[in-house]
Amino acid sequence: MNDRAEAIARAARRGSRPLARATAGQRTAAIEAVARQLRAHADEILAANAADLARATDLDAPMRDRLLLDRERLDKVARAVEEVAALPDPVGQTVKAWTRPNGLRVSRRRIPLGVVMIIYESRPNVTADAAALCLRSGNACILRGGGESLRSNVAIGSAIAAGLREVGLSMEAVQVLDDPSRDLMAALLLRDEEIDLVIPRGGEGLIRFVAERSRIPVIKHYRGNCHVFVERTADLQRALDICENGKVQRPGVCNAVESILVDAPIAAAFLPRLAARLSKVELRGDVLARSFVPTMTPATDEDLSAEYLDLVCSVSVVDGLDAAVAHIERYGSDHTEAIVTTDEAAAERFIAGIDSSTVVVNASTRFADGGELGLGAEIGISTTRLHAYGPMGAEELTTTQFVIHGDGQVRR
Amino acid sequence: MNDRAEAIARAARRGSRPLARATAGQRTAAIEAVARQLRAHADEILAANAADLARATDLDAPMRDRLLLDRERLDKVARAVEEVAALPDPVGQTVKAWTRPNGLRVSRRRIPLGVVMIIYESRPNVTADAAALCLRSGNACILRGGGESLRSNVAIGSAIAAGLREVGLSMEAVQVLDDPSRDLMAALLLRDEEIDLVIPRGGEGLIRFVAERSRIPVIKHYRGNCHVFVERTADLQRALDICENGKVQRPGVCNAVESILVDAPIAAAFLPRLAARLSKVELRGDVLARSFVPTMTPATDEDLSAEYLDLVCSVSVVDGLDAAVAHIERYGSDHTEAIVTTDEAAAERFIAGIDSSTVVVNASTRFADGGELGLGAEIGISTTRLHAYGPMGAEELTTTQFVIHGDGQVRR
Repeated sequence: MNDRAEAIARAARRGSRPLARATAGQRTAAIEAVARQLRAHADEILAANAADLARATDLDAPMRDRLLLDRERLDKVARAVEEVAALPDPVGQTVKAWTRPNGLRVSRRRIPLGVVMIIYESRPNVTADAAALCLRSGNACILRGGGESLRSNVAIGSAIAAGLREVGLSMEAVQVLDDPSRDLMAALLLRDEEIDLVIPRGGEGLIRFVAERSRIPVIKHYRGNCHVFVERTADLQRALDICENGKVQRPGVCNAVESILVDAPIAAAFLPRLAARLSKVELRGDVLARSFVPTMTPATDEDLSAEYLDLVCSVSVVDGLDAAVAHIERYGSDHTEAIVTTDEAAAERFIAGIDSSTVVVNASTRFADGGELGLGAEIGISTTRLHAYGPMGAEELTTTQFVIHGDGQVRR
Repeated sequence: MNDRAEAIARAARRGSRPLARATAGQRTAAIEAVARQLRAHADEILAANAADLARATDLDAPMRDRLLLDRERLDKVARAVEEVAALPDPVGQTVKAWTRPNGLRVSRRRIPLGVVMIIYESRPNVTADAAALCLRSGNACILRGGGESLRSNVAIGSAIAAGLREVGLSMEAVQVLDDPSRDLMAALLLRDEEIDLVIPRGGEGLIRFVAERSRIPVIKHYRGNCHVFVERTADLQRALDICENGKVQRPGVCNAVESILVDAPIAAAFLPRLAARLSKVELRGDVLARSFVPTMTPATDEDLSAEYLDLVCSVSVVDGLDAAVAHIERYGSDHTEAIVTTDEAAAERFIAGIDSSTVVVNASTRFADGGELGLGAEIGISTTRLHAYGPMGAEELTTTQFVIHGDGQVRR
């Protein structure tokens, strides 16, 4: 297994170099070719997906739906790849430049990370999305999907390889693993000489497994227990809209609201309206919340840190902004927290107090998303502070090097 | 041991919050108080250092010198801390701001990483430097020095604690470990819930130990095998100055030159002059280099990747820029590489081909240094691509969060 991991990792390292040194136009052409080949390979991909689905008899309905590809969905996958082709190419960008008193001209220039390994579960569109973003940022990638979508991923991988071949790039630049075993993954996680970054996306068990074994830097995309704090000066109508949108519009995603905190002075006015507006949601309230809406289920301590990904939400009454911040510090997940307020000073204090990756004032937590924030596309949402925090786009898959121009300067 | 590690890590996490939320002025006051207390505690610190030196009978002279503190050196340590107090405070800075078509105002704002653990060897001034940079960037820190400087570090730690007390900050913000055992270090490396970053500085053995055991992200400060490539159009006089400065001015540091590559067409003209200029340096040449200067020691393959940190240097003749880049790719350490050339297109091709953390055109590799590049002070030089690559200052000890301001926007 170690030999296989070594061969894969070394191939990726080899594949990374021509990609990093290609021009932006060549990378764009490669991504466009991948999109074209995804459409050209539609029959093979859909057949492979049907085979995956036929074997996946033990998956529940939502998981089967995540796995399912049809012509329409595959077209969407190809279009998403085309959108990445249209993104600005980050490689070689000068981020900052200055001149030193001794005349040295210094700049920081974006370069690819090198080799990125992405570990994910079920949804086969991630294979194409991740490959496109890695190509855009000049990185070779190793894509390791879950066993249930193995055939779909491999078929998508063949289309990607055909696209790379079309533009004269090596298949080594994007490797889709045909072995979803944890043994191979564990062996790859030791290849810190060749692989620069690991991004695990999936359940807590998978992410723990990766974090505990990896010698390679890991950016975790963990759970989101996102809060809305309805501050005492809030416009209650607006607060209802924001709570409802965050909880109901798409409950199964990581930027959905899982906990609503209500400032004590407005609890009596707000909570009954909230319960009416979220009538389809199971609200689990603390003692104070239930004193205003007795029909709520009692919330346990686990409820306060839960990521339900469902039409369930915890509700707590807190006495003031500091108590809200302390509550989020204790139960939060560093993902996204929102405040609804008309008091600008309160908004500033909330921002200063919250160290989650995204803080929102008077809008829905659902905007914590690469596309919505204008990053173009995202490889995920990092809840790790190192390197990238929050939604990660192509730029976040690069690093910067120092470039120094002199005319003979030496140190004294 | 795990209980101790847990207590230390949790205290650091507690200590990080008031520090992150303090104003820039409060952080400045804290760093200034630390400098003051370092001067006030001079007697205790020098006595502790004398005790360390008395026990360090098995250290060689250069190592003893690294460990030694006297009044003058301690004054320099306090002055370095004062310089950090004068640096701009990165916390809360808006790095970028834009508005989305739906009216959402988005920005990225610098926040501290949280808790940083720094692992280092021998030089006790690192204790004060690292504490100051962590305070500047709003991070709590855990400082684990080597056993040989334990008493010095603990005495400096007491002075730092007195400084923090003076301004009403908790001692938990800067913890200097009084137990240099690998057991405690290993137990701390598992505390990824409380510690956000580990920076190991020291020998390869220590860094490997940390990288293999840590569940916390690690930024390595590895060896530097820095190259100078003397391209065929180079001004040979300038090339001699740059080679000599890089090799001789301070051979024991990581940005010193360890390998000189000479373009074949100028080898006959340049190599004898190089040998004459570097007459005090043991040059180890490849077959081609020795055909021009037969007095060179023959270079082995190990020589080509060695970090000598001494008056020794490998010399190779390469046929053109691409061969130089390939040589660096094979033997380099991602630290710093320089080209001497008068051909701007060659300089651009070199920059595009080199993915080391610093690339230098027509100047000494010795400028790859936080102070020289204008970062103010450095916590080290990262050879890890993730998060920070190259010299790391206070800014590199922060991350950014997304801040979104709306007026009631929800997703459709």
